[in-house]
Amino acid sequence: MSITADFERALLADIPLTRAMQLSLRDYRDDELVLAAPLAPNVNDKGCAFGGSLGSLLTLAGWGLIVLHLGERDCDVYVQDSQMRYLAPVWADFTAHARLAVDTSWPAFDAALASRGRARARVQCRVPLADGSDACTLEARFVAIART
Amino acid sequence: MSITADFERALLADIPLTRAMQLSLRDYRDDELVLAAPLAPNVNDKGCAFGGSLGSLLTLAGWGLIVLHLGERDCDVYVQDSQMRYLAPVWADFTAHARLAVDTSWPAFDAALASRGRARARVQCRVPLADGSDACTLEARFVAIART
Repeated sequence: MSITADFERALLADIPLTRAMQLSLRDYRDDELVLAAPLAPNVNDKGCAFGGSLGSLLTLAGWGLIVLHLGERDCDVYVQDSQMRYLAPVWADFTAHARLAVDTSWPAFDAALASRGRARARVQCRVPLADGSDACTLEARFVAIART
Repeated sequence: MSITADFERALLADIPLTRAMQLSLRDYRDDELVLAAPLAPNVNDKGCAFGGSLGSLLTLAGWGLIVLHLGERDCDVYVQDSQMRYLAPVWADFTAHARLAVDTSWPAFDAALASRGRARARVQCRVPLADGSDACTLEARFVAIART
């Protein structure tokens, strides 16, 4: 199994709400992770995507970006805080795209983890609309802590 | 049926993810709304509460506080942005408590809605631990728009 298939399988096995959301891993390359979810199980009272589903997929995309980067390294990854903006309603199946923020780099992250056993990363995530604009964005800080 | 029972029933009917979360309305009085969820359907890979479930319950509590205040007035309520802080893991069933932020008042909100057909409110939400401290907090801005 590939690392991404393992990750998707573990997510669906360990977090019941990801099964309810029918989450899937769409793509992982060039330091970007893309998770996907269909609209139907994630609708709100207005028939568009539920904010809780959008926030969950965005946060999981950011968390997964770090977990996949860590690979075989034995760490726990926690979200510390996040800011979310809801810019436009989502009326279709949707994806959440996660990238490192510009003030975070993997070499610095890896060096901190190796020397201190913990490292922080800031991640920027977005749900794009069909025209490429953002339906919502999430910026979040995560910490990875090596298991002792 | 009471207004709170109607609200809970509509939430569970209209938003599938609230059923997956097994959300319930715990309390609504003195301008505070309390929603509840059991841990089991909301766990993460570590066995504590999934951040997406915490964020969803907090956002719904803030949204519901405004919806319940509006009562019979025919409005749509949207979340605009939110800041969330994760302070401590949650290892048990949990509740989300929503109150108006100190810089928001219902008379000002009601006056804006009556005169302009839309009004904004800032809401502060928290998931308390058994000792009364905060496991996580969410501050969010909502807008209510009268249906024409």
